[in-house]
Amino acid sequence: MATPCSSFEVLSEDSETDARRGLLGLPHGDVRTPAFMPVGTYGAVKGLTPADLSESGADIILSNTFHLICRPGTELIRELGGLHKFMAWSRPILTDSGGFQVFSLEELRKVDEDGVSFRNPKGGDLIRMTPESCVRSQLDLGVDVAMVLDELVPLPSPKERVRAAMERSIRWAERALKVPRDAQNGTRLFGIVQGGLDEGMRAECIERMAPLPFDGFAIGGLSVGEAPEELHSMVGFAAPRLPRDRVRYLMGVGYPEDIIEAVAAGVDLFDCVLPTRNARNGNLFTSRGRLIIKNAIWRRDGRPLDEDCSCFTCQNFSRAYLRHLYITGDSLAARLNTMHNLHYYQSLMTRIRGAIVAGTFGELLTWARQRNAKGQGPSWWREQEER
Amino acid sequence: MATPCSSFEVLSEDSETDARRGLLGLPHGDVRTPAFMPVGTYGAVKGLTPADLSESGADIILSNTFHLICRPGTELIRELGGLHKFMAWSRPILTDSGGFQVFSLEELRKVDEDGVSFRNPKGGDLIRMTPESCVRSQLDLGVDVAMVLDELVPLPSPKERVRAAMERSIRWAERALKVPRDAQNGTRLFGIVQGGLDEGMRAECIERMAPLPFDGFAIGGLSVGEAPEELHSMVGFAAPRLPRDRVRYLMGVGYPEDIIEAVAAGVDLFDCVLPTRNARNGNLFTSRGRLIIKNAIWRRDGRPLDEDCSCFTCQNFSRAYLRHLYITGDSLAARLNTMHNLHYYQSLMTRIRGAIVAGTFGELLTWARQRNAKGQGPSWWREQEER
Repeated sequence: MATPCSSFEVLSEDSETDARRGLLGLPHGDVRTPAFMPVGTYGAVKGLTPADLSESGADIILSNTFHLICRPGTELIRELGGLHKFMAWSRPILTDSGGFQVFSLEELRKVDEDGVSFRNPKGGDLIRMTPESCVRSQLDLGVDVAMVLDELVPLPSPKERVRAAMERSIRWAERALKVPRDAQNGTRLFGIVQGGLDEGMRAECIERMAPLPFDGFAIGGLSVGEAPEELHSMVGFAAPRLPRDRVRYLMGVGYPEDIIEAVAAGVDLFDCVLPTRNARNGNLFTSRGRLIIKNAIWRRDGRPLDEDCSCFTCQNFSRAYLRHLYITGDSLAARLNTMHNLHYYQSLMTRIRGAIVAGTFGELLTWARQRNAKGQGPSWWREQEER
Repeated sequence: MATPCSSFEVLSEDSETDARRGLLGLPHGDVRTPAFMPVGTYGAVKGLTPADLSESGADIILSNTFHLICRPGTELIRELGGLHKFMAWSRPILTDSGGFQVFSLEELRKVDEDGVSFRNPKGGDLIRMTPESCVRSQLDLGVDVAMVLDELVPLPSPKERVRAAMERSIRWAERALKVPRDAQNGTRLFGIVQGGLDEGMRAECIERMAPLPFDGFAIGGLSVGEAPEELHSMVGFAAPRLPRDRVRYLMGVGYPEDIIEAVAAGVDLFDCVLPTRNARNGNLFTSRGRLIIKNAIWRRDGRPLDEDCSCFTCQNFSRAYLRHLYITGDSLAARLNTMHNLHYYQSLMTRIRGAIVAGTFGELLTWARQRNAKGQGPSWWREQEER
C-alpha cells in the first residue's frame, strides 16, 4: 500500500476557529488554501480559456471523471497526452470520481459489491466502473488529485442504507488505494468520508478512514438539498475530526457564507458549479447581492456589475452592454459573466486567506453569520435581486 | 456641402494590376489597406473580446446600424458614450447603413421617396429610416465611417427597377451628405455605387457619384447570390472606375479568392460574415481547405487545425479538443474557432499587402485564378472537406 505523498503544509492557524491557511504542493504547482476550484466538467470551464482561468485567480480546477469517461473517453485523452495537454491548462487539476454522477443516474445504473454499471447517457453504451477502474481512468487523465469511487445515498435515507453505503465506500476506498500509482506522474489520491447527516456514522467513518494512507480527505454526500444549517452543522462536526496534517476538501459547496463557515471548521478545498452555472444564466455575484443581468432595469445603466470589482469584465463593460450581449444571445455574455463570478469567488478566497494570516478571520465569520441570521446568506443569494 | 476629410494615402501600387497598398487614417487609428473588417453585428464580434480581435490582426471592424437600431437602440448607445465605449473597442469602426437589411425584410417594409418604414423584428415597433436619420443614427454611434442609405433590388430585377433604385440611391446619397457631421468626432461618410450586374448602369452611377464629396466609395448590391464569375467581372469593371484618390470598399465579399480578385481590381476594404459565421458552425478555413470540426475523423487527431497557422487556437489546442468542445456545446468552441478563422483572413490580408509592396502580387493572383479555374475557389470552399 502506498504512503501519503502529498506535501500539505499548514502555514497559519486562526486562534479562535479551526480555520487554517496552507499550501498544497501538487505535481503541476502549488495551491494556496483555502482554495476554490472552478468546475470544468468536460475538460473546460465553459467559455473560458486557460488564460481566463489564471486571470480569475484559480490555482487549481476540478474536472469530472464521469463526464470525461462518457465523452470523449479517458483513454483517448491519455493517448493525446493527458488532460493538462488536452485542455492546455498547465496548473493542478483534481477530478472527482464520478460517484456522485453515477448514483444520480437512478434508473440507468446497477450497483453491486464489485462496482457499478451504467448506461452512457451520451453514447448509449454500457459502462462498468469499479473502484480500481475509476482510479485508472483518473490516472489516464494524468490529474494531480484523483478521488476514490464512493457509494452515495439520497438524503434522507434509512439508517441501514446510509450505513451499508458507508461500509461499502470504505471497502472501495481500500481497493482504490491498492491501484499502483507510482509511475503515473505522482497523482495523489483522496478518500471521501460519508455518513449522511448522522454524526455517529460520520465519526465512525472518519475514525476508520483516517488511518488509511490518503493524501487528503473529502467530506462527501453533502450539498444535496439539505438546509444550510444542516450543512454547516455537519461540516462543523466532521471537518475538525479529520487528520490535521492532511488537506480537507468539502465537495460541491457552496455559497460564499457556506464557504466561510466551512473554513472556520478547518476545510481547505472547495468546488462548486454556482459561480459558473449562475454566470451562464445571467445571475451575477456582487458585493451588494445578486444581480440578474437580463432585467430591464439595467438597460441604460453605464455602471460596471460591481463598482468595487477589479475583474476584466467590470474594468471594461457596463451593465447595459452585458445585458445587451445576454439578450442578443452572444456567447461573449457567458464568458464575461463567468469571468466576473469566478473573480468574485477567488477574491473571497483571497480575503479569507488574508484574514487567517492577519488574525481577523473571526470578523469575516461574524459577518457571514450575521448575514445568515438576517436571512442574507445562501437563501438570500438565491432570492435577492439587487435593485 | 462638406468636403472630403478622409486621409487616404496610396503607399504602393502593383505594376501589373490595379492592386494598391494604402493607409486609411481614421479618428480611432490607421487602417492598413487592403483590409478585412470582421463583422460585429450587435456591437460585438460574437464570442470575442476586443483583445481577441486585436490579436487576430484586425485594424477595423464593421457593425450593423440596422441591428443596433432594433436592439438596443442607437440613442441609448449615444447616451452611454458611443459604440466604441459600449463595446470597449478603441480602434476604428465602420457601420453599414442598414439598407441591405431593410430591403431584405421584403414583407415588413414600405419604401417611398422620403425613406423607408419597417417593423422592428425584435421589438415589433414601427421604425422610420430616412437618408438623414440613417446618418444621424451612425453619428449617435460615433463611428469612424458611416455609410449612406441606399435602395437595393434583388438580382436579377427588370432594368427599369434597377435604374429607379440607382436614381433614388443617388438622390438619397446627396441628402445624406447634407447632414451636419462636423461636430461629431470626424465621422467619415462613404457613398455606395449601385447598378446591379449592368455595366452601363454601374458606369453611369459611378460617373454621377464620383464628383460628390464622399470620403470613400463602396460597391454595393453584390454578393447577393450571383456566380463568382459575375461578381469578379463586375468588380473588375467597377472598381478601377472609382476615384483613385479615395478608398474603395466592396461590401459583403467574400471567399479568399474573391478578395484577391477584387484587390487586383483596386479594392481596399472588405467585410464578410464568412469567417465568423462559419467558425460558429464549425467550418474552418485552413491552408489545405475547409475543415469540418464535428467530423468523427478528428476524434483522436492531436494536430492543430492548421499546422502552418500561428493563431492562438492552433498554438494551444488540437483538432480532437476542438471537436470535443464543439460536440459538448461549449461556447469556447465558437470563440476558438472564430479566432482561427479571423486569423486566417487577416493573414491573407497581410500576405496581400506584403505582395503588393514586394511586387509579387501577380503570383498571388495567378494562384487564386488557378484555384478558381480548377474549381478550388469559392465553390471549393463551400463544398470541400479536408480529409
